[in-house]
Amino acid sequence: MPYELYYWDGIQGRGEFVRLALEEAGADYIDITREPGRGTGAMFKIMESESEPHIPFAPPFLRDGDLIIAHVANILFYLGPKLGLAPENEGLRHVANGLQLTITDFVAEVHDTHHPIDISLYYEDQKQEAKARSAAFIHQRIPKFLGYFERVLEQNPNGSGHMIGNALTYVDLSIFQVVEGLRYAFPKAMASRKAEYPALFALRDAVAKRPNIARYLASPRRLAFNEDGIFRHYPELDSAG
Amino acid sequence: MPYELYYWDGIQGRGEFVRLALEEAGADYIDITREPGRGTGAMFKIMESESEPHIPFAPPFLRDGDLIIAHVANILFYLGPKLGLAPENEGLRHVANGLQLTITDFVAEVHDTHHPIDISLYYEDQKQEAKARSAAFIHQRIPKFLGYFERVLEQNPNGSGHMIGNALTYVDLSIFQVVEGLRYAFPKAMASRKAEYPALFALRDAVAKRPNIARYLASPRRLAFNEDGIFRHYPELDSAG
Repeated sequence: MPYELYYWDGIQGRGEFVRLALEEAGADYIDITREPGRGTGAMFKIMESESEPHIPFAPPFLRDGDLIIAHVANILFYLGPKLGLAPENEGLRHVANGLQLTITDFVAEVHDTHHPIDISLYYEDQKQEAKARSAAFIHQRIPKFLGYFERVLEQNPNGSGHMIGNALTYVDLSIFQVVEGLRYAFPKAMASRKAEYPALFALRDAVAKRPNIARYLASPRRLAFNEDGIFRHYPELDSAG
Repeated sequence: MPYELYYWDGIQGRGEFVRLALEEAGADYIDITREPGRGTGAMFKIMESESEPHIPFAPPFLRDGDLIIAHVANILFYLGPKLGLAPENEGLRHVANGLQLTITDFVAEVHDTHHPIDISLYYEDQKQEAKARSAAFIHQRIPKFLGYFERVLEQNPNGSGHMIGNALTYVDLSIFQVVEGLRYAFPKAMASRKAEYPALFALRDAVAKRPNIARYLASPRRLAFNEDGIFRHYPELDSAG
């Protein structure tokens, strides 16, 4: 039975971290809301169900048989071993999950650069605050997070170019997505800092060249970044830092 | 060998979710930075290590032998089965983790009520923005999250008064902490809404009465809420909503 991924249609968003793992593994999955005749109604039906024993708070969530699993890091923790994208060792799987949760936190901060006050309002209604938050994000948070990820790559005792262990995991795929997203949203900030993160950019390049990922990125299944997603390019929020 | 918990001294903060699980289980643990002669130096030594293969991004983190595990939800996912505070079923453990990650997201939003623009600045430097963000938090986010948690309790097919399954898990303990924290930070908002969340408040009361938790709450190990933590009481941010 194929995995069922439930996420908003029309954006990469948080669902993309899950898609990259499913695509790399060549897994059999259905991106439910993009199926003809399904749409987001199928997603809301589960979220608003009054009989489902384990309702998710928000998308993305994954259905595997009767089990509904919510949150990107949790879905990847669940899928990782099944897809051959997690460390063999149980303890190291928790280390991988810790790295993924740091990515989760970073992605939430990316979102808040354009929605610092109220996620129910438009960006235009909180533009001044977004400028202030983005400036802090570019000057402090990007170096803090990317500097950390760079160190993780450097200190990997396997010296493998991977975030953990000596083989590709879902964490590497998520790092690819983070770097891609930041380059889209903050091209000036990223261009001015690129030289500081050689290992991160090397990992980004290595992931992009993997046959299944390259095929996915060239397919219509990979949506373009846009201003409805998490990573949004508003030129007024970007600066060389 | 006792578990070692690394977290900021002087606040409940995110570390408290881990402490509650360790205390309920009567586990042997050391709250490292509160040990005489240790302090936060012991924590930074690990975070800034250039040889440690798995460096954490931020506290809290847990050391169990050679393994260092970061992020609250990850620590609880790891400890849950060992402490008898997780479902037996592997799939349900992922459902529990999904609930805990929704709590994580909510706690991050609580933090941003007093730091909506820049976490490196003082609250006083972003007070106007904090008022706007808190108003949105009280009117939209508290009802959205607490309404969801209330539904989870109501729809638990075991009708057990627990967030998942028919026995206490770490998720229940975290819900206690969230309700306590919100009552401290936003007493007017919570008083005006209490009647809407009978199952949540009943769970809060049930957790507070558990012998190990009651003993912990009365001990000096339980710090008081204060304005350095996640849940801060700034009267100007609170309203009946």
